This record gives sequence, C-alpha cells and structure tokens, in this order.
Amino acid sequence: MDFTIDLDQILELLPSSKVDGKINDPILKGIAALERAVPGDVSFLGNLKYKSLVSSTEASVVFLPLSYEGAPKQNQVYCRMEDPSHGLATVCEFLEKKLYPRPDSYIHPSAWIDQSARLETGVSVGAFSFIGKDAHIEKDVWIGTHCHVGDYSKLGSETLLHPGVKLLSRCEIGKRVVINSGVVIGSEGYGFEQIKGSHIKIPHLGQVIIEDDVEIGANTCIDRARFEETRIGEGTKIDNLVQIGHNVRIGKGCLIVAQVGIAGSVQFEDNVVVGGQAGFAGHLKIGKGAKIAGQAGITKDVSPGAFLKGNPAMPFQLAQRISILQKRLPDLFNRFEATLDKD
Amino acid sequence: MDFTIDLDQILELLPSSKVDGKINDPILKGIAALERAVPGDVSFLGNLKYKSLVSSTEASVVFLPLSYEGAPKQNQVYCRMEDPSHGLATVCEFLEKKLYPRPDSYIHPSAWIDQSARLETGVSVGAFSFIGKDAHIEKDVWIGTHCHVGDYSKLGSETLLHPGVKLLSRCEIGKRVVINSGVVIGSEGYGFEQIKGSHIKIPHLGQVIIEDDVEIGANTCIDRARFEETRIGEGTKIDNLVQIGHNVRIGKGCLIVAQVGIAGSVQFEDNVVVGGQAGFAGHLKIGKGAKIAGQAGITKDVSPGAFLKGNPAMPFQLAQRISILQKRLPDLFNRFEATLDKD
Amino acid sequence: MDFTIDLDQILELLPSSKVDGKINDPILKGIAALERAVPGDVSFLGNLKYKSLVSSTEASVVFLPLSYEGAPKQNQVYCRMEDPSHGLATVCEFLEKKLYPRPDSYIHPSAWIDQSARLETGVSVGAFSFIGKDAHIEKDVWIGTHCHVGDYSKLGSETLLHPGVKLLSRCEIGKRVVINSGVVIGSEGYGFEQIKGSHIKIPHLGQVIIEDDVEIGANTCIDRARFEETRIGEGTKIDNLVQIGHNVRIGKGCLIVAQVGIAGSVQFEDNVVVGGQAGFAGHLKIGKGAKIAGQAGITKDVSPGAFLKGNPAMPFQLAQRISILQKRLPDLFNRFEATLDKD
Repeated sequence: MDFTIDLDQILELLPSSKVDGKINDPILKGIAALERAVPGDVSFLGNLKYKSLVSSTEASVVFLPLSYEGAPKQNQVYCRMEDPSHGLATVCEFLEKKLYPRPDSYIHPSAWIDQSARLETGVSVGAFSFIGKDAHIEKDVWIGTHCHVGDYSKLGSETLLHPGVKLLSRCEIGKRVVINSGVVIGSEGYGFEQIKGSHIKIPHLGQVIIEDDVEIGANTCIDRARFEETRIGEGTKIDNLVQIGHNVRIGKGCLIVAQVGIAGSVQFEDNVVVGGQAGFAGHLKIGKGAKIAGQAGITKDVSPGAFLKGNPAMPFQLAQRISILQKRLPDLFNRFEATLDKD
Repeated sequence: MDFTIDLDQILELLPSSKVDGKINDPILKGIAALERAVPGDVSFLGNLKYKSLVSSTEASVVFLPLSYEGAPKQNQVYCRMEDPSHGLATVCEFLEKKLYPRPDSYIHPSAWIDQSARLETGVSVGAFSFIGKDAHIEKDVWIGTHCHVGDYSKLGSETLLHPGVKLLSRCEIGKRVVINSGVVIGSEGYGFEQIKGSHIKIPHLGQVIIEDDVEIGANTCIDRARFEETRIGEGTKIDNLVQIGHNVRIGKGCLIVAQVGIAGSVQFEDNVVVGGQAGFAGHLKIGKGAKIAGQAGITKDVSPGAFLKGNPAMPFQLAQRISILQKRLPDLFNRFEATLDKD
Repeated sequence: MDFTIDLDQILELLPSSKVDGKINDPILKGIAALERAVPGDVSFLGNLKYKSLVSSTEASVVFLPLSYEGAPKQNQVYCRMEDPSHGLATVCEFLEKKLYPRPDSYIHPSAWIDQSARLETGVSVGAFSFIGKDAHIEKDVWIGTHCHVGDYSKLGSETLLHPGVKLLSRCEIGKRVVINSGVVIGSEGYGFEQIKGSHIKIPHLGQVIIEDDVEIGANTCIDRARFEETRIGEGTKIDNLVQIGHNVRIGKGCLIVAQVGIAGSVQFEDNVVVGGQAGFAGHLKIGKGAKIAGQAGITKDVSPGAFLKGNPAMPFQLAQRISILQKRLPDLFNRFEATLDKD
C-alpha cells in the first residue's frame, strides 16, 4: 500500500468514534489484520471471535466495538465505534479514491466513437475503446481501455467499465453498474436444433438488461436471450468467471460467487446466495432467499429460504449428516458381514 | 426486441403453413412464450407438454403443430405447420439478420494488417484489430473489434470472430466457424517437467485446428498441442468458459456445455454430449455418442453410447439409484443399530 | 508443424547421446508419439510402459533410455540418452524459438505509452497496447497486442504478456513471468458488507504481487487484496480459467490446474498440487506439498503432505474405498431387508 493518512483525518471521517490513548507519530501508512499489523498501521476488530488478538497487536490505531473493555498500550490509540468494520470501510473508501481515482472526464484520442453515439457530460472513454452506432452513454460513465460498446447499447449514469469489457449490441446497462475486465455481455446463447443430424443454431433476438447497482466480476459471461431478455436484478453482485445463460432472470440483491454456472431460462427470486462453482440445470425456479452451497448441483426447483448442498442437492443438514455416515460405510459393511456370518 | 414483421412476411417465410383466423392489426412486434405473450406477439407450441397454455395465450399469432385441434380466439391467427419450433427458427433467422446484420465488407481505418497478410474479397476487419504476418483470411470472413489473428494463421470463408477474440499464431480455422468474444485459441499447453525441483515448461510446437461449422462460446480457451495438433471436429458446438487442453481431439457433432474442463490428450469420438461443469482427466477416450451429465468427473475411458453421472462417474441409472439410497443412510444406520441391539 | 531440423543439429543439441543406425535422408520434419510417427519424424520413449511400441514405430529417429536393448530397423536411428523426455524438450525448445520467435525489440507505432512510464532497453510493446502512468518495465519484457499495463505497475525483466492481458494498476510482476492471453490481474476482490439490506462494496486498497518464474494460463483472474496483498509464489504454474480471490497467498512451486477456484484469504504453503475444477472455501491454510484431486471441495485446513479427494474432501484412499462401497449400496439395502424379513 502506498498511502498516508493522519489520525485527524481518520477522526474527521468517523466523528462519532471515541478516542482512547495517544500516539507519537500521527501519520499512518498501512491497514492490516490485528496479528499482522506493525507500528504505523491501522487495524480493527471486525469479529468478536478475534478479541484475544487485540491486546497483543502492534497496530498504532485500533478500531473497536463500544463494548470492548481493555486499554491501549503506550503509543497506541483505540477508537471505539458502533461498527468497526463499517468504520474501516469508510476510511478505506476515502483512501481508495486517492489510490484508484477515477481520472477526469476525458476522451482518449485513440478511442473510436461512432458519430451517431450520444455521450452525455462527464463521460470518459479510454484508449482503443470503441463506441458503436446510436449507443447512448449517460453522464459520468467511465469506460476503460480496449472496451467495446455495441450498437444501440445504453449505459446508465456513473457506470464503470474496466479495461477490456465487451458489451455487444443492444445491451441495456443501469446506473452505477460496475463491470470488471474481460466480461462479455450480450453474446449469443447456446441453443441448437437438431436438423437432419446437424446442430443448427437457434437465432437469439433478445437482449441483456442489467439493472442499477449491479457488479459483475472479471471474465464473466452473460448471454443474450432467445427472445425477450436475460435480466440481472438491481443490486445483485456477481463474482469472476460466472456463466449466465440465455433468458436467465436473476432477482434483486443476489450474491453469485465465482465460477457458478446458470443454464438457460433459470429464474432466481430476490436475495438468493450461491457459493462458488455451483451449477444450475436449465428452466429452474430458485425461491427468494435460498442459499446454495459451493459446488452444489441443482436440478430441481428450490423453495424460498431453502439451504441446499451436494449433487444431487439436498437440505444442508441432511447433506452434512450423510457425509458423516458415508465415512462410516466401511465400518457398516464390515459389521453387516460379521452379523450375517454370525447368523 | 426492437423489430416489426407483418403477417404476410411470416407467411411468405413459411409458405406451407395453414392459416386459421384473422387479426385486425397485421403488424407484429414481439416473440414470446405462450404464457407471457401479449397482443402483437408471435408465440408457438414447441412441446406438446404445454398444449393447455394455447387456449389462454394473448399472442396474436400462434404457430401450432398440424395435430392441434382447437380454434383461435377473435383477433387471433393460428398457423399450423409440421414443426412449429423450426417455423419459429425460420422467422427468427429472418429477424436476426435485420437486428444483428453483418455490416458491409469494410476494413476499419484503425485496424492494423501486416502487409504480408492475404485477405480475400468481402473480408471485414473491425476497429483496433490486428492481423499478423502471412495470415490468410478467406472470403467473407468477418472480424470484430479488438481481435488478434496471429502470424501464419488461416481463417476459412464466412467465419466470424466476435470482438476481442485472441487467435494466436499458426491456428487453422475452418469455414463458417463462429468464435465468440474473449475466446483464446492457440495458447501454450499446461505441461511442465520437474527438473532439480523446478517446474520447467515443456515447449508446445503443435497447433490448433478447428474444422468447419464449429461454434465456440465466449471466454473459452483452447490450448495448442505439444506437437501434432489440438483438433475440434466439424459441427461441434462449445459453450462459454470451457477449457480444452493441449492435444485434445474432439470428434464431429459434439455438444460441450459451459465450464466443462477437458485435460490434455483426451479424445472424443463423434456426437459426444457433455453437461456443464463436467471434468475429464487426461489421456482418456470417450466413445461415440456418449453422454456425460453436468458436474460429472470422468477418470476412465467411456464406452460408446454410455450415459454417465457423478464423481466417480457411473451409469446414470445406478447413480440415480445410489442418490436415493444415500438419503436413506440415516435410516439404515438407525435400523442396523436397532437390529444389533435386538440380537 | 512447419519446421525442418537435420540429424546433425539434433546431435549438436544432445552431445552426450549415443547414436545407433543410419538414415538416408537426414532432414526431419515432425515430432510424434511412437504409434503415430511417420518416416521423417522424431519420436521418443518417455515412459517405459510404452516400450513395446518402439520396435514397430515408423519414426526415423527415436530417443531412448540408455537401458533400452533393441536395435533400429533399416533406415532408422536410435539415440540413447539418460532422459529421453528431457532430450526431446531440449530439441523442442530449439524448434520453439524458430516457430514462435520473440520478435525483435520493437514498439508498435499504434501502442500508447504514457510519457511518465519507464521502459528499459529491449522492451517490445505490441499493437494497440496501453502502458499507464509511472509504469516501470524492466529490460527485455515482451508485451503483446491489446495489453493494458495499469498505472504504477511494475514488470520484471524478460517477462512475457501474451495478447489481451489486462494488468490493472499497482501490480508487481517478477522476472521471467509468463502471462497468457485474456488474464485479468488486479481487479477488485468480491467483498460486500450488508448495510440496511443492500450489499455495499468493501474497498480494495491492496495489490497483486507475482513472484519470479510464475506462469499464468489464459483467461485466469487474480483479484487484488482488500489491504496488504494477493501473492503468487516463485515458480508456481497456474493453468487456464482459474479464479484466485483477494488476499490469497500461494507458496512457491505450486501447480494449479484449470478451472480451480480459490476463495479469499486462502494460504497455500509451497509445492501444493491442485487438480482441475477443485474449489477452496475462504480463509483456509493448505499445508506444504498437499495434493488435492480434481473437483474436490476443500472446506477445512489441509495438513502438509495430505492427499485429499471428494466433497466433502477426505483422504484419497478412504474416498476410493467409499466410492466402491457406494456402488454396493443397492445390494446392501437388499440384503439388509432380507435379513430383517428372515428375523
């Protein structure tokens, strides 16, 4: 990390925090976990489980919950606050703007923008990026290097495209959306008809709609619909290398971890949470707030609030129980054979 | 969707269909599933399972099999035909050409084409694309923005590279191949020798050959061979985010769904079908027409026509049976303990 | 393959090899496995398991271990050496330099290099590549087409970026590192806090550090740390489409096969080997030299030297045993029911 922040700036960002102790050098140079912090670092107790690490941390400044009782060492400051994780996030956000600033609104001279494209004020376009016919880029959108914004696509205000995003034609992207490098949105879905022994591609006339405040991880793929739309609901966060098939509809506020695969026409209701590498067969409905463990294989509809694991997926508790019993199978077989012998 | 088509145009595309009923407004503006269609939409009965939805659909035009018996509502037209799915595909293909037209043959002024490259007539090259030394691009090839066509590579006629494809040196791509955005073809295989405790890379002198009519999904990777070739057979369709290792040989007409991983030197015979996220260990032979369920882990050769599931993979029916019995393990253990107690 | 090499050149590359036999035409045009080789090819016996194939191979030149006893056919040469695989690698490396030469040091006229960036001697930058502010590129680095090297990033000498690599800001890449096409390094980690029902992104201030001699496969993603660093240790080799989350620390000399997913803050000690598609939950420690089978799901710390398989993962031998017993479950259930009936 390559920043400095002084204690006064921190306290300005967190005006309701309560200071305890003193430090000689108010200039802080790093943020680190309690056990790895060195003098000059800020650290924090985000989870009470790690309470015992506080007294031995070398951090100069420690963010703590109001309930924490100990006292700082010499040359150390405790800042007590309602939610130390949130306090840290506030400081980090301030620093992030310094370390990874959005450059000023600027159209790089090497970018190619179709003359029919409409760019509102404050738009930035990076080197070697391409904006197609009749694209509409709302205000304060930031587009990195090597991006493709297809014909007739629309980007809502304050949306951010990292370097190398490929947004094909007719995509509609909401406001404050973050799309990471290498993401492909709007490619043809995987659908073929068998005609006289050959696989003939089914045309895909639909589009992709990404609602406001969605984030999409690096190298993730979202196919466009056969007709109608593939839709990602407001505030949903998708990790890296995820596959989202044609006509999928994801609800609001979902979390989809890396390398998940969702086949065509699956529907997620709101607030579904999916662990890494889980897979969904086509045309399923996943109920509101369902949780799916990593690597699970979902082949049937899932009820709202269910928590499933395994392939074939089953309720988490049952899956855990069966896992334990499986390890006892050698013993069971042995004892069963012995019982039969006895008979 | 952003198109209109009128009933007369549809009937021209499907001359053998039988019309029943009348509509006031012949202009159609959308295509939708029976239960979601609104007036102005075309819909269709692709699967007899959904027959009961026909009588209540709001669609203005409904494609139906010849055997369907009901009558249209007022202001609704039934078109009966041999294969409604195929009829719809015909209409969609017509519309696709209007919505996603291949632009005219055009070399974008920002593209960089080595002077030794040979481009036949009708070739398009998008903005910021690079064509290397001695590359040979046959007629009517369309190359999107930000593509890399490596030195000595060859693209067959009518092949299509979507934006951001990276085709490294010495690749041979057939005719009418479709390669989606972000695909990497011809990268070095993953092969290392352990020499004095270090992993030393094995050079990869081979190449990648893609036969005619193959389609490759977004962000998929196909490594080049150690020597000889990595080959994808004619008419094979590969979905997004698939990994194909060095020296793999895929037969003709195979279907490989998203996120499948195929390790080095695996051979698929023709017409193999692989569900999403399945994985194959190296050096295996997969027989003609074999089917592999999603998430299966294949570690042994597979016989022609086999249908396998699970990890370790086993015949589908057995895997299903064992899945059911696994859920009964808690009960079995309980009853077994009870039996022992009784003894 | 598109090269020629003559026997004298081979013997010059392998001076300690012992020649047996004669060939009329000393010009060799290919390299192939014993059973597929044709006259004009070089072949080799890398694994004694395939010894029986040597006497029938059509190869003109065959690399053999010193212990191999047979005699060459007419118009065939045996070269005996200590390690035929290594001998072949030596020849392949020579040929690779001819087939896939690093072009001369050259800055393509279309590349865009910030004037504050520092490029040492011998650096190549491909077409449409972008080098950001204060980037530092050491000598003999080779950067392909369409690459992004972010602000303040550093690349060690002789490092190689294939076409389309996206290296975001503040990354530190060691010497002789190979990064394949489509790789994304330094993207924001996947971390959100739930605040009033919304997922609010946690800022990621950290960076990615890649040590010397690392190789990274196509379309792999490595996220930057929340604070501190995500680190890949010296000599580690990562395959295609791998996901490496924020704050992960990978030791030296590890092998990570395609499509593996490693969640945030996982630590690998040195020499860990992971099969394809395996997944790791967050915050785990994986001990030195541990081996993880393909598709395994790791949810607990792993001891040094352990060899695990399955999800939930267990020792390899136990997993194999349980797999066999599972297939006997139908029989067990039947016999158990029969026993109860008998009682």
